[in-house]
Amino acid sequence: MTTRRSFFKAAGLGAAAIAGASASGCISSPIEGKTAKEETPFKLGIAGYTFAKFNIDETLKMVQQVDVHYLCIKDFHLPQNCTAAEAAAFHKKCAEHGVTGYGCGPIYMDSPEAAKTAFDYAKRIGVKTMVGVPYKKDADKKRVENPELLKLINDLVQEYDIKYAIHNHGPDMPHLFPNAESAMKIICNMDKRMGLCLDIGHQFRDGKCPVKAILNYSDRLHDFHLKNVTEPTRKGAGIELPRGAIDMVAIANALRKVKYSGVCSLEYEKDMKDPILGIAESIGYFRGIMDATS
Amino acid sequence: MTTRRSFFKAAGLGAAAIAGASASGCISSPIEGKTAKEETPFKLGIAGYTFAKFNIDETLKMVQQVDVHYLCIKDFHLPQNCTAAEAAAFHKKCAEHGVTGYGCGPIYMDSPEAAKTAFDYAKRIGVKTMVGVPYKKDADKKRVENPELLKLINDLVQEYDIKYAIHNHGPDMPHLFPNAESAMKIICNMDKRMGLCLDIGHQFRDGKCPVKAILNYSDRLHDFHLKNVTEPTRKGAGIELPRGAIDMVAIANALRKVKYSGVCSLEYEKDMKDPILGIAESIGYFRGIMDATS
Repeated sequence: MTTRRSFFKAAGLGAAAIAGASASGCISSPIEGKTAKEETPFKLGIAGYTFAKFNIDETLKMVQQVDVHYLCIKDFHLPQNCTAAEAAAFHKKCAEHGVTGYGCGPIYMDSPEAAKTAFDYAKRIGVKTMVGVPYKKDADKKRVENPELLKLINDLVQEYDIKYAIHNHGPDMPHLFPNAESAMKIICNMDKRMGLCLDIGHQFRDGKCPVKAILNYSDRLHDFHLKNVTEPTRKGAGIELPRGAIDMVAIANALRKVKYSGVCSLEYEKDMKDPILGIAESIGYFRGIMDATS
Repeated sequence: MTTRRSFFKAAGLGAAAIAGASASGCISSPIEGKTAKEETPFKLGIAGYTFAKFNIDETLKMVQQVDVHYLCIKDFHLPQNCTAAEAAAFHKKCAEHGVTGYGCGPIYMDSPEAAKTAFDYAKRIGVKTMVGVPYKKDADKKRVENPELLKLINDLVQEYDIKYAIHNHGPDMPHLFPNAESAMKIICNMDKRMGLCLDIGHQFRDGKCPVKAILNYSDRLHDFHLKNVTEPTRKGAGIELPRGAIDMVAIANALRKVKYSGVCSLEYEKDMKDPILGIAESIGYFRGIMDATS
C-alpha cells in the first residue's frame, strides 16, 4: 500500500518540501514517542471478482481511482484460453493504470485436465499465485471437496513453481472448503506452496475466527480476501469494511505479527453493480489502520 | 464516529450474534494484549463547504452514504435570514438522514451588525458553535483581521453562550488569520468560548505544525477542519486524506491526547463538482486511524 514515504516518492515531491515539513514535526515523526514508520510488509490489492459486472477498462479505472496497485486477475477479464500476446496486452494495459496483475483466480477445477489448463494459464500470463477451488460433484450433483485432485495439484505446484491458494467459501458451501481448517486438513502435509487464499468474511460467517487462521496458518497464507460482513453466521452479508462485525484492527495486527508479505485483496461484494463508493471507503479504512499500526 | 460498539447498537444486531462473535475472539478483543476499545472522544463530521456545489438534499444523501452523522451548516444551505420554521424544517430533514447540524459557518463578518445577525442566526437555528471570519477592508480593499470586531464578538459570545471558532485560511490570506497562532494572539485573554476552528490543511500550508496547534490550544479548539494537502507550502493542494503530506496518525493521537470532544469535520476541497469518492476514501481512512489508535 501507499505509505507516506512511498507517496512522496511517487509524487516526486521535492526534498526541500519534505525537509520543511519534517522540521515542523508533522511528517514521519508522530508525537508521543512513535518513530518513523517502516514500510508495511504486505500490499493492498483488489480481487478481480469485485468487478464481476465490469470489463477490464472500467475495472482498471476504478482500481486507479482508489490508488490501488494490485489486482488479482479473474478469468472473465483475461480468459483461460488467452494467447501469450493477449496476456501481454492485458499486463500492458494494467501497467498503464499503475496496476500489477499479481495472481489469478479463483479458478474452479474438477479434473486433472482442468487443473493442467489452469496451471498452463497461470504460467502463460506470468503470475506466481493461483487461487483455486478444486471440486468434484457428489451423487446429488453438489460440488464437494476433491482430495484426489489436490494430490495432483500438489505435483503441478512443484512442476510449475506456482503457489496454489484454496479459497474458503463459508457455510453456503459446507462441503467445499467452508473454512481454512477444512482446507488445511487435506493439504497440511503437502508442499508448502499448497496453501490458502484466506477469505476472512467467509471464515467469520462460518463461525471461525479469521485472526486465529492467520496466526495458525501463516506459512500457508498465499493470498488474502479482505472483507467485512454484518454478522458471524450464514446470514452475514458483505458490507463496507468499517461497518462490519470483524475487528479489522485485529486482522491487521495479526498480518503484521506473522509478517505476511503477500497482497491483501479487498473482495467487495455489496452493491456489485455500483461498488466504487464502498470500495473507496473500505480501501481508505484499511489504509488508515495500516498507517496507525506497526 | 461510528465505533464497532455503536455500529452494533445502530444496526440493532442481536445480543446472541454479538456474543457468538466475541467468543470467536474476533470482536472487541483484539490480539496482542489490547483491550476492548473505548468510544472515541470526538465525532466525525463534514464541513458544509465541502458541498458548495450541491443543494441540501444532495448533500444529506452524500453524508448518509458515507455513514457520517454530523454536518456543519453553511449558509448557502440554510440562509442567515431563514425563519425559525425554516430552521426547524432543515433540522427535520437532517434528522431523516441520521444527520445532526451541529454548528454553522464559516461566516464572514465585517461589522457589529453583521456579527449580531450571525449570532441571532446561530441562536435561531439552535447551534452552540459558530465558525467565523471577522474581517475589515484595508486601504487597498483587501480583507484583513479585525481585532476591534473581535472585542465585540467576545461580548456576544457571553451574551448568547455560543462558541466562536475563528477559521484560519493559510498563506493565501496572510493578513486574515493565516494560522492558529495569529488568531490566538488576539483572543488569548478573551473568554474561553472565543477559540479556533483549526483548519489543519491551511495551518500546514502556512508552514505551521497542526499537531502543535492542537496541543498548544486545546482549550480553544471549538471546531476542526480535517483535510490533507500535497505539501507544506502555499502550493499545497487539497487531496484525499491518505495521500497527502500531513501525518494523520499524529493528528489523531494529538486529538486523543488533549481529549478533544468536539466534531472533526472533513472539509474536502478536491473535485468539488464530484467529491463523493474522495470523501468516502477520506472518511474511511480517518475511521481506520481512529479504530486503530487509543
